[in-house]
Amino acid sequence: MYSAPEEYLDTQRERLLGELRTFLCIPSVSTDPERTSSVREAALWVEARLKRAGPLHVELVETGGRPVVYAEWLDAPGKPTILIYGHYDVQPPDPLDEWSSPPFAPEVRDGRLYARGASDDKGPMFIPIAAIEAFFATDGALPVNVKLLFEGEEETGSPHLEGVIAAYARRLGATYALSADGAMWRAREPSISVGSRGLVALDLAVRGPRSDLHSGRHGGAVQNPLHALAALVASFHDDAGRVAVAGFYDGVRAVSSDERETIARCAFDDEAYRASVGAPALFGEEGYTTLERQWLRPTLEVNGIGGGYQGPGSKTIVPATGQAKITCRLTPGQHPDAVAAALRRHVEAHAPVGVEVVVTVHPGSAPAYRIDGAHPGLAVARQVLHDLYGQPPLDVFIGGTLPVAEIFKRVLGIDTVFFSFSTADEDFHAPNEFFRVSRLWEGLSAWTRFLQAAGQADMEHAAF
Amino acid sequence: MYSAPEEYLDTQRERLLGELRTFLCIPSVSTDPERTSSVREAALWVEARLKRAGPLHVELVETGGRPVVYAEWLDAPGKPTILIYGHYDVQPPDPLDEWSSPPFAPEVRDGRLYARGASDDKGPMFIPIAAIEAFFATDGALPVNVKLLFEGEEETGSPHLEGVIAAYARRLGATYALSADGAMWRAREPSISVGSRGLVALDLAVRGPRSDLHSGRHGGAVQNPLHALAALVASFHDDAGRVAVAGFYDGVRAVSSDERETIARCAFDDEAYRASVGAPALFGEEGYTTLERQWLRPTLEVNGIGGGYQGPGSKTIVPATGQAKITCRLTPGQHPDAVAAALRRHVEAHAPVGVEVVVTVHPGSAPAYRIDGAHPGLAVARQVLHDLYGQPPLDVFIGGTLPVAEIFKRVLGIDTVFFSFSTADEDFHAPNEFFRVSRLWEGLSAWTRFLQAAGQADMEHAAF
Repeated sequence: MYSAPEEYLDTQRERLLGELRTFLCIPSVSTDPERTSSVREAALWVEARLKRAGPLHVELVETGGRPVVYAEWLDAPGKPTILIYGHYDVQPPDPLDEWSSPPFAPEVRDGRLYARGASDDKGPMFIPIAAIEAFFATDGALPVNVKLLFEGEEETGSPHLEGVIAAYARRLGATYALSADGAMWRAREPSISVGSRGLVALDLAVRGPRSDLHSGRHGGAVQNPLHALAALVASFHDDAGRVAVAGFYDGVRAVSSDERETIARCAFDDEAYRASVGAPALFGEEGYTTLERQWLRPTLEVNGIGGGYQGPGSKTIVPATGQAKITCRLTPGQHPDAVAAALRRHVEAHAPVGVEVVVTVHPGSAPAYRIDGAHPGLAVARQVLHDLYGQPPLDVFIGGTLPVAEIFKRVLGIDTVFFSFSTADEDFHAPNEFFRVSRLWEGLSAWTRFLQAAGQADMEHAAF
Repeated sequence: MYSAPEEYLDTQRERLLGELRTFLCIPSVSTDPERTSSVREAALWVEARLKRAGPLHVELVETGGRPVVYAEWLDAPGKPTILIYGHYDVQPPDPLDEWSSPPFAPEVRDGRLYARGASDDKGPMFIPIAAIEAFFATDGALPVNVKLLFEGEEETGSPHLEGVIAAYARRLGATYALSADGAMWRAREPSISVGSRGLVALDLAVRGPRSDLHSGRHGGAVQNPLHALAALVASFHDDAGRVAVAGFYDGVRAVSSDERETIARCAFDDEAYRASVGAPALFGEEGYTTLERQWLRPTLEVNGIGGGYQGPGSKTIVPATGQAKITCRLTPGQHPDAVAAALRRHVEAHAPVGVEVVVTVHPGSAPAYRIDGAHPGLAVARQVLHDLYGQPPLDVFIGGTLPVAEIFKRVLGIDTVFFSFSTADEDFHAPNEFFRVSRLWEGLSAWTRFLQAAGQADMEHAAF
């Protein structure tokens, strides 16, 4: 049976979808310095939208980087306080020529809203704003106290977020956090994320001659930086797909039988998955299933490589430099700094003769995150999803990284319940990212019900 | 003692330098399809300039690619016929931000004319045109018969040149060819090139998933094409700098003691060379000196590599594809097609699981070239350089590739004498390419004297 806020939301669908489309037109690419003003424009849009949602106190918080948009409503004495999280920044849209419609000109096709950020995370973060509006529009109040924190640096690893959270720690106090980021694993099967992998990002630069050299005149007499770069990248893994960097696996907790059982409950068809990503074959660390590789095992991936001439035709040079961009996904027991140090040692030890190597660690690294399976916020989420979808949700993990959960735990002492309505197949971080429009409506119902149920939960649990 | 043509040239220096600067403003980058019209513009400039030089018959010859500019003057009966060669196309100018002045806005600094193509080959090819003009302006005739052939595809490996030469074979008949391309090794030591390396160029593409994948969601479950690309590139060489592709060295003639002695006569300081190119150390195939590596040994160089995200910051993806551009320099005994086939077999045999590999061979490959040390054209060149510089020239090799010499030999049955006044240190194929202005004047004297001396050579030698 629908509540009044849900009925309100049903009448507002056209307007809400239109607002989300407007939000998606803003190219808030936080990784690109040239998009700084667009990221700010998106923050201002969120600020204005929150002010229109009801009698929230709304602030734009400067961070030294991209601003945080903060809002709160604390007029539900005796009720839990929920810290809602999301991010308004997006990944770069390249390669542009692989998009069927322009990444910042949202288009609905076959029930899917295509745009960069539609799924990660503008669509999902728009849901709690609209749900809160629905409570104010119908009940005039919220069933719980809320604090909302939307950041603009998630896609760069949230480098300034910890400072802001630490500075505002007293003000950000909450019963627990509820994240609108962190996709469910499938659209047709409700799921709850109980952990995510950490992240550390590095650049590797290899330098040879001062400038590009003619390969006829000089070829054979100096080390080619691209040969050296390839040798280094090739040395990162063994033939069996295991990371071959000494110290990389230090501290990694072995996959437990409980974890294996949890994952085994998630039906997964390797061949269907392979076909969905279009890879010639699956490949990964020996001794683990595909889901175990994605969720529970650390990885080292080269995200980009470049050097020398990449234009049409050929250019007969020995290039001066080569670069690779690297990210490692981390699991419990690994510390980002230690992994970066291991990689630096490896590169220095394996650097071929005749070149210089430089490793630069990006800001914004994060360890892995786990939530206690008995957390009362999880219980609320499980019940809401069970009611909405008619089946109990699965416990799943997030292969990606949500640094905020680890920061909330360490700085504020609170856990984070992931309650996003994007799904992992929606091509976020890739061309043709989309968000299922049906999930927007389901998410609005679910968030409305979550806030209602959380308001009715007894205080013993709420204070967990 | 100066001849009349030389005296004429001395009075024309300012005008000639101005004309060369104009020629250098035309961005005739033959490797870039977007520059097709500029390449044609350069051809039209050469055609017009030849018509102004004197009563030459001049033609623009369509080739299916970039045009050839052809000219002839055959009114010296009983005298040798010299086929003069040069090219009006240039290398791409990237990386643009490393140029001190724009590549197509020529600038003279400290006696050096900086521009893309100044040294390779617009400066050197302008010299015979001006020398011929000087004969017509003073003597009203040339001391020899001449045919001039200037192509616009040298930097793409001259893919259409062989067809044109074959089609015009009867008309192109000559005593020997004299090339304005093919740098001398040093500005202060005259030298004669007696051989050049061949070339074969290939692209290697590695394809994994259909599109870029989120490295959090998918990382660890599929082969990363950049890891596979790095493994393949790393497999091309052993740690000692030798090419590790089976069959690559098939047919390669061992370096002879004569060749070693010839090279040993060329003073070469490894440390000064290392400092000049700014490499941390020299590196190359074991068992050979630096000059032997550059001149007499085959190489495999990656000229460019690319894949995934190369912009600012980071992007957490497993890329869909990676590419490498490769050129091999060949020595006598190697056939380009056989080397390409060996590389293709190697790539297919070493392709990591989970990716597809595609090898594409570029058109315009060429075997290595050697000229007989007793060729009469070499004798003329040696005498002219000895007179001009007061010391006998050294025999040297060209590490680069001049496919035209091999084509002239195979199709027309004639040898090619290299008589260029660029020098190997002039950063052709790199940023800040330059041509020494003094070498322009020396080259004008030398070409004038060469044509005079060739006209006086007895017929027995001339018909060699």
